[in-house]
Amino acid sequence: MPVIRHRITSRVLEGNPLGDPITRDLLVYVPPDYDAASSKRWPTVLAIVGFTGTGGSLFNIDPLTESLHDKLDRMIATGACPPIIVAAPDCFTRVGGNQYINSAGTGRYEDYLVDEIVPFVDDSYRTLPRGQWGVFGKSSGGYGAIVLGMRRPDVFCAIADHSGDANFELCYLPDFPAALDAYRDAGGPAAWLDRYWADPNHRREKFYKPLNALGMAAHYSPNPEAPAAHLRIDWPFDLETGEFRPAVWERWRAWDPVQMVDRHVEQLRKLRAIYIDCGLRDEFALHWGARTLARKIRGHGIAVHHEEFDDGHMNIPYRYAVSLPILAEAIAGA
Amino acid sequence: MPVIRHRITSRVLEGNPLGDPITRDLLVYVPPDYDAASSKRWPTVLAIVGFTGTGGSLFNIDPLTESLHDKLDRMIATGACPPIIVAAPDCFTRVGGNQYINSAGTGRYEDYLVDEIVPFVDDSYRTLPRGQWGVFGKSSGGYGAIVLGMRRPDVFCAIADHSGDANFELCYLPDFPAALDAYRDAGGPAAWLDRYWADPNHRREKFYKPLNALGMAAHYSPNPEAPAAHLRIDWPFDLETGEFRPAVWERWRAWDPVQMVDRHVEQLRKLRAIYIDCGLRDEFALHWGARTLARKIRGHGIAVHHEEFDDGHMNIPYRYAVSLPILAEAIAGA
Amino acid sequence: MPVIRHRITSRVLEGNPLGDPITRDLLVYVPPDYDAASSKRWPTVLAIVGFTGTGGSLFNIDPLTESLHDKLDRMIATGACPPIIVAAPDCFTRVGGNQYINSAGTGRYEDYLVDEIVPFVDDSYRTLPRGQWGVFGKSSGGYGAIVLGMRRPDVFCAIADHSGDANFELCYLPDFPAALDAYRDAGGPAAWLDRYWADPNHRREKFYKPLNALGMAAHYSPNPEAPAAHLRIDWPFDLETGEFRPAVWERWRAWDPVQMVDRHVEQLRKLRAIYIDCGLRDEFALHWGARTLARKIRGHGIAVHHEEFDDGHMNIPYRYAVSLPILAEAIAGA
Amino acid sequence: MPVIRHRITSRVLEGNPLGDPITRDLLVYVPPDYDAASSKRWPTVLAIVGFTGTGGSLFNIDPLTESLHDKLDRMIATGACPPIIVAAPDCFTRVGGNQYINSAGTGRYEDYLVDEIVPFVDDSYRTLPRGQWGVFGKSSGGYGAIVLGMRRPDVFCAIADHSGDANFELCYLPDFPAALDAYRDAGGPAAWLDRYWADPNHRREKFYKPLNALGMAAHYSPNPEAPAAHLRIDWPFDLETGEFRPAVWERWRAWDPVQMVDRHVEQLRKLRAIYIDCGLRDEFALHWGARTLARKIRGHGIAVHHEEFDDGHMNIPYRYAVSLPILAEAIAGA
Repeated sequence: MPVIRHRITSRVLEGNPLGDPITRDLLVYVPPDYDAASSKRWPTVLAIVGFTGTGGSLFNIDPLTESLHDKLDRMIATGACPPIIVAAPDCFTRVGGNQYINSAGTGRYEDYLVDEIVPFVDDSYRTLPRGQWGVFGKSSGGYGAIVLGMRRPDVFCAIADHSGDANFELCYLPDFPAALDAYRDAGGPAAWLDRYWADPNHRREKFYKPLNALGMAAHYSPNPEAPAAHLRIDWPFDLETGEFRPAVWERWRAWDPVQMVDRHVEQLRKLRAIYIDCGLRDEFALHWGARTLARKIRGHGIAVHHEEFDDGHMNIPYRYAVSLPILAEAIAGA
Repeated sequence: MPVIRHRITSRVLEGNPLGDPITRDLLVYVPPDYDAASSKRWPTVLAIVGFTGTGGSLFNIDPLTESLHDKLDRMIATGACPPIIVAAPDCFTRVGGNQYINSAGTGRYEDYLVDEIVPFVDDSYRTLPRGQWGVFGKSSGGYGAIVLGMRRPDVFCAIADHSGDANFELCYLPDFPAALDAYRDAGGPAAWLDRYWADPNHRREKFYKPLNALGMAAHYSPNPEAPAAHLRIDWPFDLETGEFRPAVWERWRAWDPVQMVDRHVEQLRKLRAIYIDCGLRDEFALHWGARTLARKIRGHGIAVHHEEFDDGHMNIPYRYAVSLPILAEAIAGA
Repeated sequence: MPVIRHRITSRVLEGNPLGDPITRDLLVYVPPDYDAASSKRWPTVLAIVGFTGTGGSLFNIDPLTESLHDKLDRMIATGACPPIIVAAPDCFTRVGGNQYINSAGTGRYEDYLVDEIVPFVDDSYRTLPRGQWGVFGKSSGGYGAIVLGMRRPDVFCAIADHSGDANFELCYLPDFPAALDAYRDAGGPAAWLDRYWADPNHRREKFYKPLNALGMAAHYSPNPEAPAAHLRIDWPFDLETGEFRPAVWERWRAWDPVQMVDRHVEQLRKLRAIYIDCGLRDEFALHWGARTLARKIRGHGIAVHHEEFDDGHMNIPYRYAVSLPILAEAIAGA
Repeated sequence: MPVIRHRITSRVLEGNPLGDPITRDLLVYVPPDYDAASSKRWPTVLAIVGFTGTGGSLFNIDPLTESLHDKLDRMIATGACPPIIVAAPDCFTRVGGNQYINSAGTGRYEDYLVDEIVPFVDDSYRTLPRGQWGVFGKSSGGYGAIVLGMRRPDVFCAIADHSGDANFELCYLPDFPAALDAYRDAGGPAAWLDRYWADPNHRREKFYKPLNALGMAAHYSPNPEAPAAHLRIDWPFDLETGEFRPAVWERWRAWDPVQMVDRHVEQLRKLRAIYIDCGLRDEFALHWGARTLARKIRGHGIAVHHEEFDDGHMNIPYRYAVSLPILAEAIAGA
């Protein structure tokens, strides 16, 4: 079986603020002829997933959607993609997902990936020397990919950002009307989150906007001094009246990839491949974020592979068939 | 018939930037015993309507919704509301409606109301002496009412803001993803608006968000130097990439009633009645704006009649049955 | 003013089963040069409206939708439409509208139109001799037009069915899941209808499906012996379990225009013009009904003017600009 | 690992009309102490899944939804459920799923389950003697469970029907307006299905209704003599005009569990446990079908465990925590 499941206990995540587990799964896909090539080293890519997901879901069975291992097996067999190792960690949290950054609100997940997952895989598999990993992901995972590319080019040399969070005013603010209503009905964000986890169905439609807003807030504007009822978060809107708080919002903006570009030009320049795509009907308007990002990076004379396609935000892992060969070749071609 | 139709030609609107008509309807409701009371003077209220509406629509026939004249006749007959005159002007524009302010993008509609409509009615009907008008409206009309209350307490002494635009980050920004897509598909806002007017059905669902965003932009951030293809508007998002432009947005915020309160405390203090309500399921999140507004005004020691009710934004003229007696009594009781 | 309002007291509707008013409005549009032509007689058309509507609404003011009188004035002025008289009665009922048939559940509205409205207009205006009226309408009004054409060619010689109810399995059955839920929550259809009328907002979105199903059931399968809690209606689904009742449904089908065609061939042959259209995105799938109807009528060698257009079910009075000239010319050309 | 994957080649499915694979996965869950109890025999349950699913998906990883093996491990550990074996076959087909019946349109899947899957598991695992299996499923799988209970009580002695298809007029007919539009746009059902499979995203929202209607039609009204462009199916609506075809619909009704009850009373009487549940907000109105089914079966003096709960149709595997202990105890208690 090409997908190996590891259980890893983290030191970085010890005492994380949400009380999330520190022993977690790591799934690793190895290419079909991995075992046979005893001394050969292989391009390796980190897979990070969207909100409400976990790495293991990439290998789920669905008769209507090709799983990641089937896709890679097929593409490697036909030569459509060079053989690669893919490492898919679990970074799920009590706030519904991960943005893959170090945050006082959720934990040091950038460090977890860079200091624990990558070294573990480097130790356990015949990967390439340090600095030659790729990273890809969709949605929050796409966000994580571009942000890791900007922050950690010492580790990652090629990134693919699929439908990643960007242009926060367009992708996040529209969730707040429903989120504020939900928190108020529940008696505040902490009470809402308790209720959420007490419900036997965590995927009710009505939960997505409040959960998403809450997850983002925990990452971008945590405040250990804020009230427990507010989940130790500074909210960009007053929870009683809905008034906008520009100062809190500025803290979110500081994490918007679109705003980060100008502060990370030298890092971006180090990357061998930057792939960005998004569907033209993205329900979170992320095609606009992708456009801004591509334009800003190119504005610094850095090449971007930017694609748009006729689809929305969901059920689009077929796009990995475009990005993974680009990452694999960029890594291998170094 | 209790509703009289006038045709008025405006000087204020001459040469308005959108080329909208300057000769317009004004509908005036007079109470049932108006003619009999030959020297008596009557409280008078200006009715301003929501986006995509016009004053005349208040008197439309719908078997499921009581018209304004039927409601007033009924309430006056039972004593539920003191007899009042209501003046309902037409302020519709090519950008889909009106915010009832003086704007370089649409025209001087505050002046139109204050310098032409009010004097015409004062001349034509036995109204009370200057400074004793009321004003009410819903949605954009509610917005207009509170803004006129803050800006023109020399004319209006009592206002009712039903589900009025406020907290612009919550009520306007969520429309932009769809609006930006629509403008881009059409080749820009000007091209979109041309297409809109060329369509035989101006009420297609898909038109509302782009039309609303466009209407607001024309009011809040017009710029006569901006490209014609942009409709002489500075847009709060880059039309090519979707990037947010905080400086333009600050111009919108300057017109957010929530931001205006602190600059208009003395004026607000002059009003005899401030009525604000909004449905708890308002599709544009305006219940949050109403809360902020009520809290901010009360923070200055000024009384506000604030109500919430279990409904959304549409089909709620039954709320006038609550506000109009309050306005009428405040005016009459002075 | 070109639209005259009459108040008519009906004998036909006396003691109607829903207790609806028997004194009702009738609005009559006369063409601009009507008064001048003292002995001239004019083609006359009956206007019947959709569910939740009334004749008077055709003349409502909406800055985004041309009213019927403005449309006729404009088209007559340019010669696009021959001058006609239009009579728009009120047939609204407690069950939300009218199908314009004689029904034990609602009243004898076919008779009301044919025996009272038409004669009143013939007496009051210079119409053409008996048998030369046209009739048009949309939705329930379109249904009424084609059914009146089939049943009363002695009165109507030209009909226009816009987006009319037809193919009942496609247009009505999909409303039943929501309708059955609503009735059950309320404690039965009679309790639901009481609640509905007690609500200050009769146009809440959630009301439409249960109201529509109820209105149709009152017309097609009334049963004076049925329980009052069931509104004296035989329901096509068991109200406790949802089981389908084919025998009741057959009574509905007997009123489906698509099923009526074969039984009314000779009557259809007498009509001078049969106009049928529907939008290709009709939310009630009525474009399929229109297709079946057109095909079935043509199958008997009878001409049908059948059009499809790119729109849905709502806000499409612009289609009258196509149908009314056809009716007017068919009538005038006789 | 508690879930074992088998590959089985079928003889029953050889030459199936859709050309679907005959070598398929079978996943088998065994309880934690299965290996230790060397001669002990275990209650065994067949798991059949909903439309667009496959057995393997029951074991998918989702941080928000407990997988079937985790749920069973947990419940067995606490004694909440007796230990059981669960066999989850793959019955996916080119028309999007399976109703688990023998059909000329899809294949002999009842036979596949009864003559191949059950015997294979009986041979490979220490199950109980013939006639003591349970079967459970959701949606199409719930349908399959109740139908297998009625048709094959020689094999299954306990069934759980979760949100299963029933009352076909309520659950299937509402899909047809969108389905007919889609087929027409594509040039017929066969062309539509080709397009569907050519699209890289098989889970676009717009595909569900046409796919579901097509899948059901292939099961209930196949006709090998029908045109290939119609997919060798007799459609319950005319594909050109939308006219309803009652004779075809009667063939569907013959497979409605609600209609099957009276013809299968003796078989139902043989079952030791009949569990039926459905969410009160089921988007396909299946709570009505569950009510009818429960009432009809009870009408024959046969006990039914019928529950309703506050949820919709999706993401409700938490309901297996209610049904599986009932099945396990009914089987074990025999």
